[in-house]
Amino acid sequence: MRTLDVDLGERSYPIHIGAGLLRQPELWRPHIRGHQALVVTSSVVAPLYLDTVMAGLEGLQADSVVLPDGEAHKTLEQLSTLFDHLLERRHNRTTTLLALGGGVVGDMTGFAAAAYQRGVAFIQLPTTLLAQVDSSVGGKTAVNHALGKNMIGAFHQPRCVVADTDTLSTLPPREFAAGLAEVIKYGLIGDAAFYDWIEAHCKALSDQRPEVVAEAIERSCHNKAIVVASDEREAGRRAVLNLGHTFGHAIETDTGYGEWLHGEAVATGMLMALDLSARMGWLAAAEVARLRRLLEAFGLPVRAPEHMTAERFLERMALDKKVVDGQLRLVLLQGIGEAVLTTEAPLDLVRATIAAHRAPA
Amino acid sequence: MRTLDVDLGERSYPIHIGAGLLRQPELWRPHIRGHQALVVTSSVVAPLYLDTVMAGLEGLQADSVVLPDGEAHKTLEQLSTLFDHLLERRHNRTTTLLALGGGVVGDMTGFAAAAYQRGVAFIQLPTTLLAQVDSSVGGKTAVNHALGKNMIGAFHQPRCVVADTDTLSTLPPREFAAGLAEVIKYGLIGDAAFYDWIEAHCKALSDQRPEVVAEAIERSCHNKAIVVASDEREAGRRAVLNLGHTFGHAIETDTGYGEWLHGEAVATGMLMALDLSARMGWLAAAEVARLRRLLEAFGLPVRAPEHMTAERFLERMALDKKVVDGQLRLVLLQGIGEAVLTTEAPLDLVRATIAAHRAPA
Repeated sequence: MRTLDVDLGERSYPIHIGAGLLRQPELWRPHIRGHQALVVTSSVVAPLYLDTVMAGLEGLQADSVVLPDGEAHKTLEQLSTLFDHLLERRHNRTTTLLALGGGVVGDMTGFAAAAYQRGVAFIQLPTTLLAQVDSSVGGKTAVNHALGKNMIGAFHQPRCVVADTDTLSTLPPREFAAGLAEVIKYGLIGDAAFYDWIEAHCKALSDQRPEVVAEAIERSCHNKAIVVASDEREAGRRAVLNLGHTFGHAIETDTGYGEWLHGEAVATGMLMALDLSARMGWLAAAEVARLRRLLEAFGLPVRAPEHMTAERFLERMALDKKVVDGQLRLVLLQGIGEAVLTTEAPLDLVRATIAAHRAPA
Repeated sequence: MRTLDVDLGERSYPIHIGAGLLRQPELWRPHIRGHQALVVTSSVVAPLYLDTVMAGLEGLQADSVVLPDGEAHKTLEQLSTLFDHLLERRHNRTTTLLALGGGVVGDMTGFAAAAYQRGVAFIQLPTTLLAQVDSSVGGKTAVNHALGKNMIGAFHQPRCVVADTDTLSTLPPREFAAGLAEVIKYGLIGDAAFYDWIEAHCKALSDQRPEVVAEAIERSCHNKAIVVASDEREAGRRAVLNLGHTFGHAIETDTGYGEWLHGEAVATGMLMALDLSARMGWLAAAEVARLRRLLEAFGLPVRAPEHMTAERFLERMALDKKVVDGQLRLVLLQGIGEAVLTTEAPLDLVRATIAAHRAPA
């Protein structure tokens, strides 16, 4: 087992990464301080791991709720059903919520924990690669709105994160690849050596070799923990974690949540961000081709939907959280491992980037 | 104008109290730091004061939304319409929400501000006595759930509070009296001299004499600010602000939100809390009679609904936020101005108190 810490003063917490950790409740149960717990999971994950987690909650009032699977259900309406459960089962402010699933379950459970009785504890038990390397760490929680992704939410840190790498064996290959997009992101934004390592271990990662995957998760979490510790509420530096996300969110919102996986949209979005960086003269054009090859090796999409014109992209991007007072704020690269947040991208170059990445090739 | 401060470090903010302050935008406009603002108000308040506030927002992208009036509409569904407005009008994370109205508008606007894009700024412009003396100060925001009041919310402090006492002239007498219940609360929990002052100025308060009302608001806010500054997120001491609220919430929830005004339910709830304190030998019985006289002088209810049996009360109270791991936590008095949070109240005395306060006399 690998353990690292997210250093946030009194809100600090550990991340445990390893095989079989869901069957080791001694890792996460001590973080439940009251006598009540609610496990939130999805219809896909429940048949696989819910019994294991519930067994670890013996002796408590342990309830569970199974949400429909997928980003399309990350809504205020579904959130409301969590509050119904909590109140019907009389959970009080010492209760602990456990998020057992991917990013959707984690985001919704975390926001429910942030808002229920103005804030209760929660624990992340991520079961997808994307959740293990990214969304379960850092305390960003949210639900979507028809007009924008993650528009309604809170910063609310978990008490601990337990990433059981055994759960990845049941993950569809497409979802595993989507998680690798966020792994690549950490290399691109701040860790060139890690980016080289990912390239060098491309085959082993695709083959899901356990030790290599565990290493990728640890290095991703390590990178994320540093950024989060430096800027918990995204007043500045943390925004670099959004590399590829402004373009990506536009794709996700426009195609209806769920058609593109989040990681897939981020993959294409990152490629567009690197392309724009190159057009601005900040990055060698060869780096764009290099990222495209890596994404393609993992089976990740490298082109935006054909119907998404530059106007359509810009319309969607104008609603993104990264837009402040009419200025498009984008994360771009000044080199591999050197992400910066900028408002300097000229609109004509943004349009050229979008046009260059619309399918078909 | 009277000004005092809520001392919360970097989240500190001023409270301005006085006549005609809504027509002095120089007081609140500097707290709007971006180029966008959304005024949230109710169908009752909009015709009276919305134009005045909008006039103070000239030069900004200033939008407004009018919510249906009353506690029955303090729901997730109504909250959702605020997010719709914000997104349709493309408000970004530098926007500022202004709550123009009573406690319902303030609570909903505050929670919308807490959750929109994971947190934007907001300003309280309270127009009821209850909101001016209590709900607009301290950063508690929430919506109700069918199974419990204020069950979904956040701690989110406003940038400033501007209480224009002129707005009280348009307040129905019943709502004015409901606000006085919270004024009395501050005397009871921690300021015996203020309690004496309220008694001595009972007639002047009922007659809404401006200088006396302004003094009552200032002393209430002063008392609240001290408690909030000592315990922003209600880890301990702040709970005394809930004197009368556990009994009161049970009445509000049981009768359907809106039949009893919040302040009315708090009035009866406080009387029950004092009665229970007396039954426990903590308080002279004469103090119960004294509070009853004061409440009656303001036309406030002193009896719970006849249909609410002890069982029904306890059922409702068991769902309250103040219940922790099965223990009923109540705020009781060990003397006027000496509130304590306790789990020591014997259940048979709680039942006796409830039985003694069911209508009819």
